[in-house]
Amino acid sequence: VLALAPNARKIPVGKRSGQVSADQAFINRLLVASAREGGVVVRLKGGDPMIFGRAHEEILACANASIDVEVVPGITAASAAAAHLGASLTMRGVARSVVFVTPTVAKNGEHDDAWADAAFASQTVAIYMGAREAQRVMHALVSRGTPLTHPVVLVQDAGRPEAHHKAGCLNDLPELAGNLGAGPVILLLGDVFADVMTSTNQVPHELARHA
Amino acid sequence: VLALAPNARKIPVGKRSGQVSADQAFINRLLVASAREGGVVVRLKGGDPMIFGRAHEEILACANASIDVEVVPGITAASAAAAHLGASLTMRGVARSVVFVTPTVAKNGEHDDAWADAAFASQTVAIYMGAREAQRVMHALVSRGTPLTHPVVLVQDAGRPEAHHKAGCLNDLPELAGNLGAGPVILLLGDVFADVMTSTNQVPHELARHA
Repeated sequence: VLALAPNARKIPVGKRSGQVSADQAFINRLLVASAREGGVVVRLKGGDPMIFGRAHEEILACANASIDVEVVPGITAASAAAAHLGASLTMRGVARSVVFVTPTVAKNGEHDDAWADAAFASQTVAIYMGAREAQRVMHALVSRGTPLTHPVVLVQDAGRPEAHHKAGCLNDLPELAGNLGAGPVILLLGDVFADVMTSTNQVPHELARHA
Repeated sequence: VLALAPNARKIPVGKRSGQVSADQAFINRLLVASAREGGVVVRLKGGDPMIFGRAHEEILACANASIDVEVVPGITAASAAAAHLGASLTMRGVARSVVFVTPTVAKNGEHDDAWADAAFASQTVAIYMGAREAQRVMHALVSRGTPLTHPVVLVQDAGRPEAHHKAGCLNDLPELAGNLGAGPVILLLGDVFADVMTSTNQVPHELARHA
C-alpha cells in the first residue's frame, strides 16, 4: 500500500506487543492536526481496523473535530490465518459460529474472563493478543468445559509472507506459545482445525511448505 | 478483480439467497475438471472464502484430485458492514468479543438454535444469511435473554457501492427485515451499534449519506 503513495509524508506510529509505542491519544491528536493542515490523511493499519484495531477512538476524534472519515475494511488476522492454513473457519457440518475475542484488558489492568464464555459457546475461536497469556487462556477455557484435547493452532505473522504455524491440542498451548518470535500471533481453536493437528496430507501446499 | 483478467474464460456459478444456483458438487467437479485442462483456475467469491464461503468443500475436492490450492483471504461481510457504518465491532470498553454465526442449515432442513447460545455469549454479533428468518432469530435471542431493546442494524449489499442500512432494536427486527431488496443482508447486534441506532451526528459521512 505504501508503494502506491511515493510522495506521501509517512509517520510511523506502529504498535508491537510488549514494546513502547505511540500513545493512542497522541495518534488521535496527530490525525486531527494533520487533517487540519489540509490534504488527505491515511491512517494505515494491519488487519481490519474495525476488529481489535482501535478505529473507534480515531473515528470519534475526527468526528469531534468535524473531519470526514472513510473506513476501508481490511483482512483481519483470523481470515489471513485461515487462508494460510487452508482451513475454513466455518466448515459445513462442523462449525456454524466463529468468535473473535481478546483476553487482554486496557491499562486499568483488571482481568475479566467473560471472553472465555463467548469462546466456549462458539464452535470456532480466534483469540487475538492472547499468546503471551497462554496459561491463563488455557485455564479459562478448561474451566468452562473445553476439553484438553481440543485442536489448537497458533499462527504467527498471519497475512505476511513469513507466516508460519504450530498445531496441537489445548493441553499443549502454553508449550506451543512458549518459543515464538516477535511477530503477532493469533490463537485458533476448534474442530475445524482437526486436520491441521493430525495430518498434512489433505491440505494445500501452503500448509505443507510451512509444516 | 475481473477487470484484471480480460483474457480469462469466465464461468458464473454465483449463488443468490432463495434462488436456484449452481450445485456445490457441480462447482467442485468444474473446478477439478478446469484445473486438469491446465492453466490457472481462480474461484472468485464475494466476502472471505473461509467465513461461510464453502471453501472447505472446494479445497478438499482439489486436494483429493492432487491439485494445488492457494487461498486468498477476502473482506467478510461483517468487516464491510462495520466500515460502512463507521462502527467498530470491538469498541474498547464495550465489546471484547464478536461472533459470526448463521441460523440457516443445510438441505436436511433440521433447525437447531445452538447458534443462539454463541450469539448470546458474545458482545457483538454478526448474523449471516439470517434476514429471511428474522422472526425465528428474534425469538431465539430473546429466549436466551437478549433484551428487546438491544441495538440491531441490518446492512444490505455490504462492501458494494450501493450498501445501505436500517437501524433499530431487536424488537423491530422482523419489521426492519420485512421490506428489503434482493441483495445479501447481514444482521448486526450489540451495544457497539447504539450510536447507529440513536444518532447520526457523531458518525462518518458514509453513514450520513445513506441514512
